[in-house]
Amino acid sequence: MTPSTTPTATATVSGLMRDISGIGQDKTRGGYSRPVFSTAETDLRHWFTEQAARRGLDVGTDRNGIVWAWWDTATGARQNAVVTGSHLDSVPGGGEFDGPLGVASALIAVDILRRRGLRPRRPLAIAVFPEEEGSRFGVACLGSRLLTGAIAADKARNLRDLDGNTYADVAAANGQDPRHMGTDRRTLQQLGVFVELHVEQGRGLVDLHQPVAIGSSILGHGRWKLTVNGQGNHAGTTLMKDRKDPMIAAAKIMVGIRDTAKNYRDARATVGRLQPVPGGTNVIASRVDMWIDLRHPRDEITAALAESIHLNAQVVAAEEGCTVSFGVESLSQTVHFDTGLRNQLQTLLPDAPVLDTGAGHDAGILTGHIPTAMLFVRNPTGISHSPDELVEDDDAEKGAAALADALAGLLGAAQVIG
Amino acid sequence: MTPSTTPTATATVSGLMRDISGIGQDKTRGGYSRPVFSTAETDLRHWFTEQAARRGLDVGTDRNGIVWAWWDTATGARQNAVVTGSHLDSVPGGGEFDGPLGVASALIAVDILRRRGLRPRRPLAIAVFPEEEGSRFGVACLGSRLLTGAIAADKARNLRDLDGNTYADVAAANGQDPRHMGTDRRTLQQLGVFVELHVEQGRGLVDLHQPVAIGSSILGHGRWKLTVNGQGNHAGTTLMKDRKDPMIAAAKIMVGIRDTAKNYRDARATVGRLQPVPGGTNVIASRVDMWIDLRHPRDEITAALAESIHLNAQVVAAEEGCTVSFGVESLSQTVHFDTGLRNQLQTLLPDAPVLDTGAGHDAGILTGHIPTAMLFVRNPTGISHSPDELVEDDDAEKGAAALADALAGLLGAAQVIG
Repeated sequence: MTPSTTPTATATVSGLMRDISGIGQDKTRGGYSRPVFSTAETDLRHWFTEQAARRGLDVGTDRNGIVWAWWDTATGARQNAVVTGSHLDSVPGGGEFDGPLGVASALIAVDILRRRGLRPRRPLAIAVFPEEEGSRFGVACLGSRLLTGAIAADKARNLRDLDGNTYADVAAANGQDPRHMGTDRRTLQQLGVFVELHVEQGRGLVDLHQPVAIGSSILGHGRWKLTVNGQGNHAGTTLMKDRKDPMIAAAKIMVGIRDTAKNYRDARATVGRLQPVPGGTNVIASRVDMWIDLRHPRDEITAALAESIHLNAQVVAAEEGCTVSFGVESLSQTVHFDTGLRNQLQTLLPDAPVLDTGAGHDAGILTGHIPTAMLFVRNPTGISHSPDELVEDDDAEKGAAALADALAGLLGAAQVIG
Repeated sequence: MTPSTTPTATATVSGLMRDISGIGQDKTRGGYSRPVFSTAETDLRHWFTEQAARRGLDVGTDRNGIVWAWWDTATGARQNAVVTGSHLDSVPGGGEFDGPLGVASALIAVDILRRRGLRPRRPLAIAVFPEEEGSRFGVACLGSRLLTGAIAADKARNLRDLDGNTYADVAAANGQDPRHMGTDRRTLQQLGVFVELHVEQGRGLVDLHQPVAIGSSILGHGRWKLTVNGQGNHAGTTLMKDRKDPMIAAAKIMVGIRDTAKNYRDARATVGRLQPVPGGTNVIASRVDMWIDLRHPRDEITAALAESIHLNAQVVAAEEGCTVSFGVESLSQTVHFDTGLRNQLQTLLPDAPVLDTGAGHDAGILTGHIPTAMLFVRNPTGISHSPDELVEDDDAEKGAAALADALAGLLGAAQVIG
């Protein structure tokens, strides 16, 4: 089916972004809060469905809550499709572009291809994945994990949000039958490649003075929990020399973690969550729990970093009369995008540098099943998961143009199947 | 009125402590949780009332919830009384002795005085103050503050516990008429001196190899809130060099606070409460709130310490690309106990060293109204507000004997009034 109407011939990415800029604003945190299946995210899904339908795409939601908008070939066969897209949900108080930029750019790329008169020999689809951030139900990339079987359907159905609602119930309230969630071989078999465009979440393109990059890999990462055990005591009566204060040990450990990470090029180490127990102003803590997020392109270096942090923490804690316990909570290996697809993209986009990313994406989940790739669009602040995230209008259009070039190349290079 | 019976002639402090050792145990935290007007604290009040009545004391609860047990003189006039006592409430997961030791020792001191055949020429009273810890309604020494007018009755009535109950409602449910709370001139006019015995909350007596000390002062203390503002960002995508991480600044500030306090003899500085915002494992915090508890015998040094911490925090935060805000939340001046009374106690207890304390007490609140003093009993662990707090049986009896000697001296030295 060829799009029958062209009402969006002059649409732009920045125009589409402005259309949705009022949806899900967070007056408290700043930025946007668009958790999956909230009013805001549902409004965005309706907006997408309407925009896709306006372009003559065939839109529907599958049994895992993924919205698909198809530009079919003349044969109508849905096989070996070139897929692009992203997500519409956000972290609490997140940026405007993380997710929606990829969706808006996909719509505009379709406009560009249509203006070029392209008649695809291979189907093109735009996918919108639910709960990419994991900010409501705790598991990132939940939609693509369900599609590929990376999470068991039962486990997904029983995930709960902070109000105690299960994912099954929330999905059902949004018109999905939770009994049908789970691995979807039929849909997977329709997909040929996946190219996700996303705002860059670092300063790589700022430093390189380029608007668009090609992704090479998603850094492996792990989460460890480190507990420092000390001696709880009275803040007023305990002399400084008599203390075994786990907060001081935790503080020295945190500085040590940062300094260690600085010694490894490309390593990222973060303590963003820390909890003193009991946590009273006039009480020396008896225990401090802290969580460490570690990432590096080479998984063996992530492991070595964790080991180094553990050993250093033991020494620092002992200096303060404290002890530590240390354990891994989750571990994901580095995902390398498909080399052949990346080489194709480098030929199609010769000016684009190649960058890795520290953030997880649905493209990473799909990597084990089909060739995947990513495009990153410059973020002048380099800041992500924050209201300060930014994409300049001009870069947004360049991103969509690059995506259109990439898709055109992939569509043209495709074998017609069926 | 002279006690008419002597059924407790062989009672001991450790025996009384064992009698109540099953009340209010905290199976989760360890130690004891006896918040004011909980079942546990109410059970302890009943135990005290029964013990006092058994000794022929005239027991009653005043309109501020303070329990008074009177050993009246032959005239029955309640003026210029020698008062001892303490409290029965505890912090969550607190020790066995903080409060109850002073109450049990007061009962045993009465037994000792009676065995000596003392017939007081001046009334003796044992007082049990409610909400000394402030662990339920947030204001420490609430009973003595109400008695003396150090807190307005309306403010006290409207204090709320974590379940949202007001102090007025909880007091009413425990048989008090909240309309009658507040400054109680009549009761205050009955009091001559107050001597509170308390477990030591530090290691002073351990280091001096003595069982009992005389208190000199309660260290002034203040609470400050320090906020470090940085740049929230994605933990995976933000290079170490591009970060403005307020957790690292906060960590360096905490170590600096400790090191600064170590340079001032007798200073105590504590960060026991710290809150990263938003507090996610995979998010570089945008802000860290921390609370600093500072104490020193000399108020001008407490102020200088706070200023020094603020200046150092500004420098350290700037090194990390962060900024700080700093403000005082509360400030109490050092309380010096009555010099004349202390001299009397030193004559009566020639072996007892003189120590200050960093903890607040009802004796501190009463200081502005009558001469007050404290006795401290050795705590071999030096640990307080913790299940590890300890008093050896032998020291407990020595404490009660010292209290009896002190009370006898004060009663004997008294002018008969009325």
